[in-house]
Amino acid sequence: MKSRLLIPAAGRGTRLGASIPKALLPLDGVPMLVHTLRAFNAAEQLEGLVLVISDEDRPAFEACLASHFPRLSPTFVTGGAERQDSVRHGLDALDAATTEIVFIHDAARPFIQPATIRAVHDATLLHGAATVAIPAVDTILEADESGMLLRTPDRARLWQCQTPQTFRLEVIKAAHAWAQRENLRGTDDATLVRGMGHPVALVPGTRFNLKVTTPEDAALAELLIRENLACTA
Amino acid sequence: MKSRLLIPAAGRGTRLGASIPKALLPLDGVPMLVHTLRAFNAAEQLEGLVLVISDEDRPAFEACLASHFPRLSPTFVTGGAERQDSVRHGLDALDAATTEIVFIHDAARPFIQPATIRAVHDATLLHGAATVAIPAVDTILEADESGMLLRTPDRARLWQCQTPQTFRLEVIKAAHAWAQRENLRGTDDATLVRGMGHPVALVPGTRFNLKVTTPEDAALAELLIRENLACTA
Repeated sequence: MKSRLLIPAAGRGTRLGASIPKALLPLDGVPMLVHTLRAFNAAEQLEGLVLVISDEDRPAFEACLASHFPRLSPTFVTGGAERQDSVRHGLDALDAATTEIVFIHDAARPFIQPATIRAVHDATLLHGAATVAIPAVDTILEADESGMLLRTPDRARLWQCQTPQTFRLEVIKAAHAWAQRENLRGTDDATLVRGMGHPVALVPGTRFNLKVTTPEDAALAELLIRENLACTA
Repeated sequence: MKSRLLIPAAGRGTRLGASIPKALLPLDGVPMLVHTLRAFNAAEQLEGLVLVISDEDRPAFEACLASHFPRLSPTFVTGGAERQDSVRHGLDALDAATTEIVFIHDAARPFIQPATIRAVHDATLLHGAATVAIPAVDTILEADESGMLLRTPDRARLWQCQTPQTFRLEVIKAAHAWAQRENLRGTDDATLVRGMGHPVALVPGTRFNLKVTTPEDAALAELLIRENLACTA
C-alpha cells in the first residue's frame, strides 16, 4: 500500500506576524513542516511528499528539506488561488500507479501524533475515506439569520475537524472533479467526499493536534513543546 | 436596574491537579474568582454576588473575598449534585425585589472582558436573555450513530458557547422550574431558556474568554496574563 503526504503550504504566516511561508515558521527552533514530517516518519508513513507552494518559496523549502530530510525527494507543485485549488493541483501530480492512499494535512498542525496517523490510515483502508477529529469541547449553538439562538445540537454527535484527512486516491480525485463540475467551493476535503455520497470515517485525534494560526497559538505550541506535552498521544 | 452575579463554584480543580476549589486556583498569583470579579467590577456590574459552593469551602472563599473585595457581602449558597442544581439553588436565593438581571458565569472563565459584560447586559435588557459566544473556529462535523460523517453544518451559523449567560430573573427562574417539571437535565441555561420558548440573543465574546479545565489551559492562561493578552478585548 503506497501512501503519499500532500501538504498545501502556499500560505504565508501573515497572521503570525511573519513574511516567510507559514510551514517554515520555527516552533522551538524547528520549522512546523519538520515537526509534521518527523511524525509521519515515526508512523512509517513518509513514503513520498507533495508540497504545494508558491514558486518563489521553493528555495526556502528545498533548503529546509535538504537540511532535515536529505533522502526525501519531494514533488513541488504550484499553489492555486485557494486551498481547494492547491489540493487539486497536488492531486494532479499523483497517479494510481504510485499512490493508493493520500494524506492531506494542514501545514499548520505540527503536533499530529504517529498513532493518529496510523489510525486514520487504517480507517481509510477500511472505508476509503477518513478524517481526524476530536469530540466537540464546547457547547455548540446554532444561530438563526438575525443572530438569535435557534437551537443547540446534541454535542455528543459533534466533532471538531482536524487533519490529516486521508483518502484512497481515486476517491478524493473523483470528489475534486465533482466539486469542479458542480462549482462547489470552500469546504474541506472530507466534506466534499461525503457530499459526493462516499462514506467518511471519523478518527479520534488529540487536543494537541492544534492549528497554529495566531500568535497565541504559536505561544501555546512552544509551551507544549517545552513541557513535552506535544509528543504524548 | 439591579444585577447580580451568580457563580456556581462547587467544583474542585481535580482535573487541574488541585484539591482546592477550582475558583480559588491561582493564575499568576491571583485566584481565578478574583480575576472574574475584577472584570465585573470594571464593568460596573458587581452589585451583588451569589456564590454556590460546597459548605466545607466557605472559610476559604470568605478569606479570599475579605482580602480582595472587603466591601462585598456575598450570599453563600450550598451547591447541588450537578451544575444545574447549583444554579437553581443560587436562583432560589434571589428575588424580584432586589434583582432584575442575573449573570450566570463559569468560575473557570477568569478572562471575561468588561466590554463583553456590558454588551451581554444590554442584550438582556432588550431580549430578556442572552449568552456570550464566539463564532466557531473549527469546522464542526456531525456524526451518525456509527461514528461516520453524517453532514457538515454551515459553520457560518455555529457559535461556541461561553459565559456569562444573562437573564431577567423571572425568565431564568421560569426556565429552571420548567426543567424541573419536565425532568430536563444537563443543558446550559441559555439552551433551557430557548427550549422553554423564550428568545436568547448571542453576544460576541473574545477567544481569550477561555475555560480553564486542563493543566494546558492553565499554562495558556498564565501565558496570556504574562503577555498582557488577556486584558485586551
